[in-house]
Parts: sequence; C-alpha cells; structure tokens
Amino acid sequence: MDIELWYTEKQTPHFGITAKIEQTLHHEKTEFQHVDVIETKEFGRMLVLDGMVMTTDRDEFVYHEMLTHVGMVTHPDPKHVLVVGGGDGGVIREVLKHPGVESATLCEIDGRVIEVSREYFPKIAGALSDPRVRIRVEDGIQHIEAHPDTYDVILVDSTEPVGPAVGLFQRPFYEGIHRALREGGIMVAQTESPWFNRDLIAQVNRDLRSLFPVTRLYTASVPTYPSGLWSFTLGSKGRDPLTLDTGEIPELDTRYYTPELHHALFALPAFVKELTERG
Amino acid sequence: MDIELWYTEKQTPHFGITAKIEQTLHHEKTEFQHVDVIETKEFGRMLVLDGMVMTTDRDEFVYHEMLTHVGMVTHPDPKHVLVVGGGDGGVIREVLKHPGVESATLCEIDGRVIEVSREYFPKIAGALSDPRVRIRVEDGIQHIEAHPDTYDVILVDSTEPVGPAVGLFQRPFYEGIHRALREGGIMVAQTESPWFNRDLIAQVNRDLRSLFPVTRLYTASVPTYPSGLWSFTLGSKGRDPLTLDTGEIPELDTRYYTPELHHALFALPAFVKELTERG
Repeated sequence: MDIELWYTEKQTPHFGITAKIEQTLHHEKTEFQHVDVIETKEFGRMLVLDGMVMTTDRDEFVYHEMLTHVGMVTHPDPKHVLVVGGGDGGVIREVLKHPGVESATLCEIDGRVIEVSREYFPKIAGALSDPRVRIRVEDGIQHIEAHPDTYDVILVDSTEPVGPAVGLFQRPFYEGIHRALREGGIMVAQTESPWFNRDLIAQVNRDLRSLFPVTRLYTASVPTYPSGLWSFTLGSKGRDPLTLDTGEIPELDTRYYTPELHHALFALPAFVKELTERG
Repeated sequence: MDIELWYTEKQTPHFGITAKIEQTLHHEKTEFQHVDVIETKEFGRMLVLDGMVMTTDRDEFVYHEMLTHVGMVTHPDPKHVLVVGGGDGGVIREVLKHPGVESATLCEIDGRVIEVSREYFPKIAGALSDPRVRIRVEDGIQHIEAHPDTYDVILVDSTEPVGPAVGLFQRPFYEGIHRALREGGIMVAQTESPWFNRDLIAQVNRDLRSLFPVTRLYTASVPTYPSGLWSFTLGSKGRDPLTLDTGEIPELDTRYYTPELHHALFALPAFVKELTERG
C-alpha cells in the first residue's frame, strides 16, 4: 500500500476542499507569505499562498481569462495595462492575447511568487518573458499612487482579503485606481465568493458605484476556489460592457470566455444580484 | 477543547469536500442505500446518500429551482408533472409554485428517503403533504414504462450514476420518458459536473438530440456538489426555451432562477459548450 497524502484547505473555518497529492514540490516562507507548490492528482500542480489555493494547472484558465477579457474587450483600445498582484503571470498571458497592447505591467509585491511560478508553472508564467511586459516588484498601492493618468485597464489579481492584501479591498485603493486610469479607463478586481464573502462583495460594489459611472458584477466557476463560484467587479470611466455588440468582440484563444458569453455573464442569480443592490 | 468532527466526501477518487459537523442525526442502511443526515456548521443539515451529499439547508434552493423552473416555464401549460427520484421533496415544492399544476407525482424508489426528509428537512419536504402530490414508492423506469402519454413535464432528480441510478442515465430510460410525455412535453435531467463527468454529459446530450427536436444544456452553481458547477439537460417535444420572451416568464418566489436569467443560462463557457457539439 502506497502512502496516501492529502492536502486540505479550510476555505472557511467550517468548510474546505481536500486533494490527494503525489508530492510536495516547493515550500518556503518569503518576506510576505508562505509559498507552496504541490502536485495533485486531480488538478495537477497547485500554487498555494498562505495555505490558500491560488491557481492550478487544470482550472487556471477560468480565473485568468475571466479577470482579464471582460474589461479588455470593453475598453475600445487598451494599450497600457496594469496587473496588481498576479505574480504567477496568468493574467499577463491573457492580456497579451490582445494585439493592441503596447505595455503590460505586472506589479507584484512578492518577487518570490514570480520566480517560483516561472520554475513550476511555465505554461502560466511563460508570458512574463514577452518584451511588452514590465515587471515591478513593489507594493501595488504605492505603484498606483505614483502613476496617475497612466493606464487604460487595471486588473486586480489579489490574494484573499487577509494579511498583505487587505488594502486591495478598500476604498482608498479604488480611489487611487480611478486616478491611475486614463480617460475611458476600466478596472476589474477579483472579489471573492458570492456564497462566503457577501458583505465584501456588496461593499466593493458600493465603493465602485460611488467612484465610477459604470459598475458591473459577474461570476465564473472555479472549482478549487471557495464554493466553486467566484465574483469579479468591474468599474468603468467609459464604456459599459452591456453596450457592446457581440459581433465587435474579438474571438480569442480561450476555453471559458467567448463573445457569445459576454452579455450573459451579467445576468446574475437572484442571490448574487441582490449584492449589487444593497444601499 | 471541544471535539472536532469533520465529514469528508471524496467526490472523485482524488478530490473532495470536508465540512465541520456538530452531530450526526440519522444513519441507516435501507433496502437501496445508506441514508445519513448530519448537522454541519457551514451548510446546516445535510442529506447524504451512499456517502454523497444530496442536499443541504443552505444551498438546496439552487439545485431544486434550477432542475424545475427552466422546463416548467418553457412548457405553455404544464398540468401533470412527474419527478423521478427527488425523495427529499425539494423539486416537488418548486413544481407547486406553478399555479396551473393539477398533479405532481413523485416516483421515488426508496420510501425511507421520503420519511427521513419529512423528519429532518421540513422546509424541503413539507410540500409533499400538498393535496396535488401523488407519492409512488416504485422504480422510476417501470413507472415511466407504465404511463405512456401521461405527463407534460418530467424532471429527473437522480443520485449519481452509480448503483441504483445507473439506468437513469441511459438511452432506454430517455426513450421511455419520450413516450411518457404528452404532445409538447418537456424533460429535464440533472447531468452531473462539467468538470468531472464530461463524457456522461456529452452522451446524454447525444441521446436526447436523437430523440427530441430540441435539446439544451445549462448549468448552476451548487457549492456542495462536485466542482461546484452542475449541469442540467433539457429535451423538448415542443417549445425551445430560447424562444420565450422574458416578459412572458412568470415571476416566482425564487432565490436563484429569475426571468432575466433564463436566456443567459444557455450561454455556456467554451469548455462546457463543446460537450453539446461532440458527434
């Protein structure tokens, strides 16, 4: 009988996922967090930060596509894009599928996440070697403050709202993003689970509504994230994603997002929609 | 330090969920399966059949609404409805929200599931006492064969395709359903996870396409089901759900399904849509 090893993540104090693993590949404590890479049988390699799954070989395409493309296709001509967090490089890879992009800046506070991802997740992090990519190992909040009127699209690929990422879910950060966006600019942030983080989603939507003329919430299925349902909140200084014609949305090399899916994303189940309507 | 008890379900051989429990409430082996009821801290009471979560207090509304209402609103006048399986009564409860229903027949092979649900899940099973409900404790396949040209809508609320429910995922059963449906009749079956049961979903869609003029696949988020994403397959002898006007869909007392969501449900992520296109 071979040894049986299981990784278990308590996604809430009372609920979690468990995955059979073949081996642990990497373990370190960086200046900011614990960084682990494990090889699972069901989802392939898994990047785990502070005990929380960030990405896996098998389902990474959902989160990375869905954080990126909704905002990118809504902006009429995104040339300069900033990704806050996202050291694994998956969002940058998706950004670079848009041929008009001239610069894609990755602002990741923990350089070790970038290096570990390059080593263990080459299909995700490979795009970080593209000449259009600028890597800044620094605090996202400070980077935003130092770059007013700079970006067309800003994508917030943060960890959970505990520890170093707390500030990335607060109103002063969104005010900074609003200033860092050029005219017609668009931001999208990952905003956790509509099952487990309801107050947070409602708060972010309230904050963005008070800053941007257009705020929209949408969701996607990510099996390794808490509840399997994940939310994204978009704020736009310009176009509303609902006003696009399906025909004008480019066909991209994707496995989740499609032009036909674009409008449907904003039709929300009642228990999710009510989070956008709290006063 | 209080005792810490966790329920763990291996949803695949290599992946599962784990839930902290307060107590076990019920455990028995019936003629057909193991039936357990446990009290969890995150999802409330949980009905577990043969070690697989069937329903929970907290998220049951999603599955029960979504198996029921899409087909019910698509049929122009559903008077006689059959639920195969579904001994907990949740689908019957949703069926009865449609005022034109004259009879709602529950055909559940295991009478103990009905009795245990009445005892431990009164909010789900309570509708079983409605005078329009007919309870038949018998095999769904035999019931279907014995009732040609009888039902307007048939909803297949089966367990997983192992053990007693295997036949409920096979073509002869769907042929029987086709015969048991009246003119313009509609069936909807739960068809497992687009992440973990891809061949099964493709096969059911192939089978229904060969029997019904209209076949449609849609999904919903159920956090306690494998992958958190669940699929439903609809076959119609009459109306196509895509041809409904949103304005003609009745507003029901629901927390997931809404008229505004109806059309969006059929816009599928690329990796799900491809399951409907396999030859």
